[in-house]
Amino acid sequence: MPASTFSLDRLRIVLVGTSHPGNIGGAARAMKNMGLSDLVLVTPRCDVHCSESISRASGADEILAAARVHDTLDAALGDATLAVGASARSRTLPWPMITPRQLGEGLSAEMGHESARVALVFGREDTGLTNAELQRCHRHVHIPTNPDFSSLNLAAAVQVLAYECRQAWLASAPNGTDREDDAPFGTEWDSPLADHADLERFFEHMERALIAIDFHDPDNPRQLMARLRRLYLRARPDRMEINILRGILTAMEKSARNR
Amino acid sequence: MPASTFSLDRLRIVLVGTSHPGNIGGAARAMKNMGLSDLVLVTPRCDVHCSESISRASGADEILAAARVHDTLDAALGDATLAVGASARSRTLPWPMITPRQLGEGLSAEMGHESARVALVFGREDTGLTNAELQRCHRHVHIPTNPDFSSLNLAAAVQVLAYECRQAWLASAPNGTDREDDAPFGTEWDSPLADHADLERFFEHMERALIAIDFHDPDNPRQLMARLRRLYLRARPDRMEINILRGILTAMEKSARNR
Repeated sequence: MPASTFSLDRLRIVLVGTSHPGNIGGAARAMKNMGLSDLVLVTPRCDVHCSESISRASGADEILAAARVHDTLDAALGDATLAVGASARSRTLPWPMITPRQLGEGLSAEMGHESARVALVFGREDTGLTNAELQRCHRHVHIPTNPDFSSLNLAAAVQVLAYECRQAWLASAPNGTDREDDAPFGTEWDSPLADHADLERFFEHMERALIAIDFHDPDNPRQLMARLRRLYLRARPDRMEINILRGILTAMEKSARNR
Repeated sequence: MPASTFSLDRLRIVLVGTSHPGNIGGAARAMKNMGLSDLVLVTPRCDVHCSESISRASGADEILAAARVHDTLDAALGDATLAVGASARSRTLPWPMITPRQLGEGLSAEMGHESARVALVFGREDTGLTNAELQRCHRHVHIPTNPDFSSLNLAAAVQVLAYECRQAWLASAPNGTDREDDAPFGTEWDSPLADHADLERFFEHMERALIAIDFHDPDNPRQLMARLRRLYLRARPDRMEINILRGILTAMEKSARNR
């Protein structure tokens, strides 16, 4: 369990002047996928609760239903202790700029106090945030994009920032929890790894079987066994895999004996 | 400028059995935003070039227009040296699992050789990838999501992985080229990696040889081939290793024929 002070409930998504209901629905879905729930709309330019927004929300309806609507960005940001505005890179007046990764990395510290509230602010599909809106944000965040095609879909931008926030939240878990990526292959496995002795018995067996089928000449070994060792050791076989491979070797030997 | 060997052109997005043209358009837009261009569709279940896909592509039309369509995943993966399948966490047969961050972190090393081709494979909106499709992938990647609402929109999933790949590409500075860890196994290797087509021919050959020595009964396959696939895909065989293994299979068949 992540530290109790860092709750994704205290992270707010603010969409300003959105035109397309599908984008509001898509943003709600992205939020729920990443464990966020606090959606605020400032002067939306479309029907928030229509078939298109609900269809794109695809089950995140309760985030849509609970979304608050405000007339001004100031009202939406009210209790925010940090406001981060999504912005294209260059502005006439330079502003402190962070990357999505830096946003995530700083979030745990940012959330240190219970009263902390972080708002991520996204502008209109066509014109983004105005200078006045951007200048209400402590920081600007730019999602690094292809300079020749830099305009992200609004829901996609919410997805990327919400994803970085979730990664930061997951990383803030206290040590000692059973994280699956502490497992040898990044996931819980179905058989324990073979130990050194199992592997050595397997390599001895393999050498005998390769001699039996006339593939391997121990008087002219070249690098054969070394290359096979390298291959199998790289894979880190589990015990069941070693049993299967030794079963194959036994069948090879039997088949060769019956000639 | 990132190192010349790490080009986003050599990163392929493969969408299998997509139902909604809007998702194909959204994926194309996400790709272009992140500097990717190689889109391959396997048996799409919708019209790829319609008003909805073009509208969602929103200017990434040339990626849609250039998208290749294949009947099989094998054809789509042909020259791929690493295939990574997007997957929910739990499967009956556990498979090596990486996070999107680990995908990005490993990408620079993965792209070390000019023949490297990395394919990210995404399944159907409703049912994802089949077990047979997932078992053609070296690794599975799971985007960490809210466990209570885990199903990402397809274009959003493409967005997140493409974003991680772009971050990795941006981070791969020209300083530190020729680093030993700019290689798939953390060191310069003596043979290029086998590609997907090499590996599939190897697995077909292996199945024939195991039948020939009476080890494998195709009428009662259990999980044998799936477990062998998992083992060898985990090891990421190079071309010379595949030649050795196929030499062993040929010797097995010959030995069995001489009975």
